[in-house]
Parts: sequence; C-alpha cells; structure tokens
Amino acid sequence: MSITVVGSIAYDSVKTPFGERERMLGGAAVHFALAASFFDDVHVVGPVGDDFGEEQFEVLRGRRIDVSDIEQISGGRTFFWQGEYGWDLNSRETLDTQLGVFEGFSPKLSERSRSSDVLFLANIQPDLQYEVRSQLPHARFVALDSMNMWIEVARDSLVRAIENVDCLILNDAELRQLTDKPNLVAAAREILSWSTDERDDERRGPSVIVAKQGEYGAALITRHGFFALPAYPLETVIDPTGAGDTFAGGLVGYIAAHPDEDLSDGLLRRAMAHATVLASFNVEEFGTERLERLTGTEVVDRLAELHAMTQFSGAPLQLRG
Amino acid sequence: MSITVVGSIAYDSVKTPFGERERMLGGAAVHFALAASFFDDVHVVGPVGDDFGEEQFEVLRGRRIDVSDIEQISGGRTFFWQGEYGWDLNSRETLDTQLGVFEGFSPKLSERSRSSDVLFLANIQPDLQYEVRSQLPHARFVALDSMNMWIEVARDSLVRAIENVDCLILNDAELRQLTDKPNLVAAAREILSWSTDERDDERRGPSVIVAKQGEYGAALITRHGFFALPAYPLETVIDPTGAGDTFAGGLVGYIAAHPDEDLSDGLLRRAMAHATVLASFNVEEFGTERLERLTGTEVVDRLAELHAMTQFSGAPLQLRG
Repeated sequence: MSITVVGSIAYDSVKTPFGERERMLGGAAVHFALAASFFDDVHVVGPVGDDFGEEQFEVLRGRRIDVSDIEQISGGRTFFWQGEYGWDLNSRETLDTQLGVFEGFSPKLSERSRSSDVLFLANIQPDLQYEVRSQLPHARFVALDSMNMWIEVARDSLVRAIENVDCLILNDAELRQLTDKPNLVAAAREILSWSTDERDDERRGPSVIVAKQGEYGAALITRHGFFALPAYPLETVIDPTGAGDTFAGGLVGYIAAHPDEDLSDGLLRRAMAHATVLASFNVEEFGTERLERLTGTEVVDRLAELHAMTQFSGAPLQLRG
Repeated sequence: MSITVVGSIAYDSVKTPFGERERMLGGAAVHFALAASFFDDVHVVGPVGDDFGEEQFEVLRGRRIDVSDIEQISGGRTFFWQGEYGWDLNSRETLDTQLGVFEGFSPKLSERSRSSDVLFLANIQPDLQYEVRSQLPHARFVALDSMNMWIEVARDSLVRAIENVDCLILNDAELRQLTDKPNLVAAAREILSWSTDERDDERRGPSVIVAKQGEYGAALITRHGFFALPAYPLETVIDPTGAGDTFAGGLVGYIAAHPDEDLSDGLLRRAMAHATVLASFNVEEFGTERLERLTGTEVVDRLAELHAMTQFSGAPLQLRG
C-alpha cells in the first residue's frame, strides 16, 4: 500500500523573528511527504524547474520517498515563495510569489502513483484536484487541502472537488469562509452534508472535517462526533512554514498505515495525535531541517508526552444543584 | 469553607448577531459567583447603586450566594457596560462604560468574607486587588484576573498583585502583553518565576497560570507541566459576555470544593474541565439567563461529554525511523 501526494514543490525564502533562510526546499507536497514517510511509501507528483538540484531530491530520497513522478521541466523555474512572519508568528506577509513551472501545471500520474490506496490533494487549483482524484477512483481514503484564494475565485470548483473526497483539511477561518458560517461546528456540519450521487449510485461526500487552528491545535468533526487536540507546547517556534502540510502528512500517513481498520473516530483521533506531533517538530527549525533528521523514536516519545498533557480524570463530583 | 469574590456587579446592554438585551444583570463578580456556587458557599463583595433592585439580588440569593457584602451606595448608579459583538463573536466593541459607584470603590470585607479560605480577585484596579488580598493573609488559594488596560496603565501594581497570589487567570493575548513574550509557554514560565519573599521569609508567587483562549479553550501551565482543553463545541453561541468569569468560577469553585487535596496538576486539570463546562453553558444564552436555571446534573453530563471528546488512545505504532 502507498500514499500519493499531488502539490507544490518549492523554494521558500523565509524571515522570522529568529532568523532567515534563502531558497530552502519547501512546498506543500514536500512537507507532506516527509511527514507521511514515517508511516508508508509515498509518491510525490509535482513539477520542478532546472534549478531543482540533486541535493533537494536527496532530501526526499533520504526518507525513501518515490520522486519518479516529480516532473523536471526543461527551461522552467521551480515555484518560489518569499514571506516574512510577524512578532508572534501568527501573521505573515507574502513578499514574492513566482509560479514558474507551476503555471500551467497538469499533473501526470504514473501507473505506480495511480495504484496508491491513499491520496492527498495538497493545495492546488481545485479543478486539477478533481481531475487527479478521478484518476484514483478506487482509492480507499482521499484528503484535500485548499486555501482562501480558491474559495474566493473558484468556489464552485472547490465544492465539486470536496464532494468527491473523504476528508477536508482546512484552516478554521477557511471553513468559516467556505460556508459563510461563523461557527466552526455549524460550518463543518454543512460540509458533511455535501454529497454527490454521481458514482455507482453510491452516496459520496466528505465524512471527516479537520480544522487546523495553528498554535491552538486542531479539531476533528465527523458525523459521529467531535474531537480536539491542542498543539504540542513549544517554548520556541522558529518557522511555522509547512506546519499545516506536515500535520496533513501525519494524519493521512497514520490512516494509510492502518489499511485494515475502518475509518472510526478512534482511528482518526490517533491520526490527529500523530499529526500534531509531526507538526510540532516541523516548526522547531527552518523549512525541512528538523524533519530531515527526525526519528521514529522521537515521534513516539512526544506522542506519549502529548497524551499525558491532554488527559484528565472524569471523577464525578456531587454538585450543588 | 467558602469563597470570597471581589469585583464588578453591573448592568450590561449587549448586542450580538442573535439579538440584544438592555441592562441585564452582569459583572465579573456576578458571573463568577453563579458558577462557583455549584461548588461552595460564595460571598460577593462589590458596590451597586440605587438602581440595583430586589430582582437582581434574588438571582444571586436563588443560588444561595451571600450578598451581605454587596454595598448599596445611596445616590449612586450601578456600573454599566454596553457592547456589541461582531459576526463571529470573536471581536467586540465597547459602546459605553459608566463607572458609577465603581469610581472610588474601596472594598469593605466583613469578618465573614475575610474568613474564606479561597479568594478570587476579579478584574479591578490592581492596588485594590493587592489590598484585598492582604485582608485574607491565610487564604489557602487566591486567584486573580485582570485586563489589558491595567497592563498598560498600572503594570507595576499589577505585577505586585500577581506576586502575591497563587493563580493568574488571563486571556492569552494579555499574558503575552504582560511579559512582552510572544510565546505563551515562555510568557507563563516568566510569570511562574515572579515571587516575593516579604511574608514570613516564605517564597510566594504564582504557581498556576491559566491562559483563556476563547473559542479555542484554555491552557494550564504550572511548574510541573502543561495541560490544555478545547472549549466545549457549541453549534450556536448567543452571548460570550461573562464567559471568562464563569470559567474562573468553575475553576476556583472546584478547587474550593477540595480543601483536603494538594494543589496537584490532577486537581487543577479536573478544575479546568469543570470551568470549561460552566463557561459553555454561560454562552448559550444572554447574560446570566442560562446559569440561573442550570442544574448540577447538566454540568456532570456535559463533563462526561467533554471527557469523551478529548481522549485518544496512545497505542504505540512502529514508525519508519
């Protein structure tokens, strides 16, 4: 079994209160793949330019990620993003975006990438997400991320894409924006009601909504219930870039690693916990620096810490009526 | 054993996207007392004017709250606040504040109020908080709330007041502002290092920091560890006014109800859970409407729900290193 991810592969120039880096390896597909590689085989699909070097490929290969569907476009330039974070890292300003080879990107999936049982559609144009999803009609679990821009300029396309996946992973502000509902639970419930009957007369539609809440953690809303986890507390956060995609890699990876389990709330909660831990490591250093040398033992140890930090005894108390 | 709370008793005029109310009973001490009354006897200390009526006193007496230290000032007007909440209830605008009898307020505590073993200093001028705290030198547990304005105009006084309590309860943005540290954990650790040796050569200083995070819940930072709980998810929030003070009432009340237990992280976590549940009921209706008819059974039932929503199994997984 394996995971296919389609999305951006990028160079990022990032400035935070703790320092700056020029043209680091980045992009949603890269951050996702590094995290997901702790759980299963990963195929990355996306374009790069001539400027994408052996050193960058090695970061991915170093975690046994399949890079054969990374399309190197002759004469093209790799997607570039430059941004600067504010004092508390909660706000960021985009200083430059150069689409490069991402302009006109049309995902080409090899037979190997199409045979994955799990698919992650990182943030790209939603018609492309829909098209890729159609190439894996029998995938057991498909998750999708997006961003505010697509809600603004391509909402209908985005809704169609969402109706055809199992899991939507968005920032909570984006869930509100997408549904025009200020309340997170109400927003999630609306999306859970979206469906399509196009395929085999079988009802399809998202059954899992994950609201990313940055430093506050993440919430999970399904048809059966609600779950929320705080972020793992760090005294120093160096660079939040890629935290959301690393989170998605942990979540989707954990589910991929359990092919024989139903998509129960119990499984999803454990996936959320692994996602939280992976994301917490990502932000400890710039770009992919921390994930490149992260070990499975470190993940397991921090998972136990996170577990201890979120439990309380429900001992009953006689209250004054 | 009993709890004394010193703070505002008010009339609030509130407009939210779901409706509006004119001159409802409100104020930090009132919201706190209603929540804390589920756990222990409560004495309320604060001023009201001639316009404060029997109907308002009855709301408090209806939950067996001692109102004998509520000072009715002849010819004075009760503190009045008017505000309007935005679309998503996360922002609010103050339209009017009339201090009335709160101007020149000097807390007068009866022997009964001074004999409480637990004290909550709701948001008032920090020198007054310090002065009241001095009147209960042997209190077992003292907690303090404040606001951004006092950090701006009376920081030294506020720091002195905080150094003399056990527990600081603030919004997380206020914790950052107070310490000038953008990171919540770092901010809390700094405050945990504040202390005074004035009393009996014994080190004093806060040992418990609670960061209120609104719709995201709350975090607890002690010298021993970290704990965080999401807010109880509600599909409809009607009026957030008083949520923070209701939370404090649940937290401090739970601790007051356990006089024989050490202030362990286990006890504090259970207190946080009760606080979260009480606050969730408060926001379901305007002002004190929901708390007035809340039952202990409802609290216990929702506590079990919250417990179920925050647990995950920490089952280990063999990760790819």
